[in-house]
Amino acid sequence: MNIAITGAGGFLGQRLAAAHLSDPAVGRLVLADVVPAQPNGGDGRVRLLEGDLSDPSAAAAVAEGADVIFHLAAVVSGQAEADFDVGMKVNLDATRCLLEAARAGGRLPRFVFASSLAVFGPPLPATVTEGTAVNPQSSYGAQKAIGELLVADYSRKGFVDGRVVRLPTVCVRPGRPNAATSSFASSIIREPVRGEPALCPVGSELELWLSSPRTAVANLVRAALMPAAALGAQRILNLPGITVSVGEMIAALSRVAGPAAASRIVFSPDPVASRIVSSWPARFDVGRAISLGFSRDSTFDDLIREFLADEAAAAKVRQA
Amino acid sequence: MNIAITGAGGFLGQRLAAAHLSDPAVGRLVLADVVPAQPNGGDGRVRLLEGDLSDPSAAAAVAEGADVIFHLAAVVSGQAEADFDVGMKVNLDATRCLLEAARAGGRLPRFVFASSLAVFGPPLPATVTEGTAVNPQSSYGAQKAIGELLVADYSRKGFVDGRVVRLPTVCVRPGRPNAATSSFASSIIREPVRGEPALCPVGSELELWLSSPRTAVANLVRAALMPAAALGAQRILNLPGITVSVGEMIAALSRVAGPAAASRIVFSPDPVASRIVSSWPARFDVGRAISLGFSRDSTFDDLIREFLADEAAAAKVRQA
Repeated sequence: MNIAITGAGGFLGQRLAAAHLSDPAVGRLVLADVVPAQPNGGDGRVRLLEGDLSDPSAAAAVAEGADVIFHLAAVVSGQAEADFDVGMKVNLDATRCLLEAARAGGRLPRFVFASSLAVFGPPLPATVTEGTAVNPQSSYGAQKAIGELLVADYSRKGFVDGRVVRLPTVCVRPGRPNAATSSFASSIIREPVRGEPALCPVGSELELWLSSPRTAVANLVRAALMPAAALGAQRILNLPGITVSVGEMIAALSRVAGPAAASRIVFSPDPVASRIVSSWPARFDVGRAISLGFSRDSTFDDLIREFLADEAAAAKVRQA
Repeated sequence: MNIAITGAGGFLGQRLAAAHLSDPAVGRLVLADVVPAQPNGGDGRVRLLEGDLSDPSAAAAVAEGADVIFHLAAVVSGQAEADFDVGMKVNLDATRCLLEAARAGGRLPRFVFASSLAVFGPPLPATVTEGTAVNPQSSYGAQKAIGELLVADYSRKGFVDGRVVRLPTVCVRPGRPNAATSSFASSIIREPVRGEPALCPVGSELELWLSSPRTAVANLVRAALMPAAALGAQRILNLPGITVSVGEMIAALSRVAGPAAASRIVFSPDPVASRIVSSWPARFDVGRAISLGFSRDSTFDDLIREFLADEAAAAKVRQA
């Protein structure tokens, strides 16, 4: 089984690559990104590709011979909002170009497209389902919603075997803050745990729909493994998450990492970020995804514990 | 007020142009199409443009100085299904190119995008609203749904003042059958009235969501006139129609044009056409459109009478 991952230099891309390298059934693993990918311990199955996927030759190199393509590459919400044209190029043109390359290859590869809850916007029902209309309130969300339609139609036409998964906000991300509007959701846990202050741009009552990195990666893998027949004509799935308010996140931080950590969060309202984040739904009916074998996290306390364990493991690797 | 109409050579485009020429408030009227536009009685306000809107210079010529752009140009459903690449170019690339031209003009023109009920597909609720998720089962529907998202995001960003209207199947169209999958809906009335046979590819129990040409044109005009504030952040509207089964259409034909006309319809099942047409909803809640001043037809009998009156008027013009 030959796998290709775009956005492989990103956090989820790296985790997804590691998950595949531990699978002996994986043959070639193409890791593509605009930035040079991380070294992968010299595994002979890995092929690193550096390039812009809106260039047809770069897209063709990714798709060539692939049985499964994970398309994670994207510019994040804050950047797509600040630079509309870059967002259109990376989030729309590159997706289309990659679909065309997959179509031209003629192998009907499984095409897993990482979409987002950012496709939704108000007015929202109490519980979002796959029957809920998208109404993106950010260019990132609009570009993801367009990508969803492209993957679904390319699948209907028999050009690719597409699987669109709408990821919850992934939390807790390691590393540093990024330009994603949702970046604060990880910052308010990660920075305080490290003894640093963190700004929270939204109110404590705001609810978020979250997934741990581990569950997000497991669900991307599940999306690729699932038989196409299970999806039928509905290629788009809302992935499971947990509903947590910012206030509950802070309470969990206090329980798991202590009140001193929680006291490092400083509320600093940001109207632009608040408007975008508030437009995202926090409550979904994910019965369809669960019945298709996708995973769900338990509590936000466990998401913090997962992060602490990952940080400790990473520190050990650095010391070794 | 300067108006531009794309797809101006088409049936609705010609009617829309005529409606604007009867309005003294209209200054320049740009009529654009890939085929040479109809002469318009030498009205000095008319400027004919022939060109492919996926060419930026053609798109710029349409958008230049326009206060209102009606974007009707499209390849129809049957053609977009048969030739995927042509559909993507005309229905997606040209729409995006025209939006870019409108953005570059910097005048924030009103941008009326003619979308279609073909964006919807099963599973459908008993009654479709603007909160119902799109699920196109044709490339035409997918391309229209993508155009909707583009117009909405260009509007949110303040590049255009967009208004997306999802047209019902327009019936009765004059002229000859075309490559639209819905073409039969007009054929089964138009041909029998002219003494010709007509094939019906779907069963008599199938329900359609129909609008007369007159109402469709009135509602396109309304979409342009409506203040942006009335739409708010929801730029997409399902236009009013009437729900009629094929059997009811034939009964109405018998009432209005006589049983001999109705007897000229021959059922000739077409699985491909049936699958696409059956995926379209026939029942909508259009309360929002009605409250915004859009028009609704009364009965299908009246749609046939409108067609007969239009045919009689056209015959008179030809004789004169």
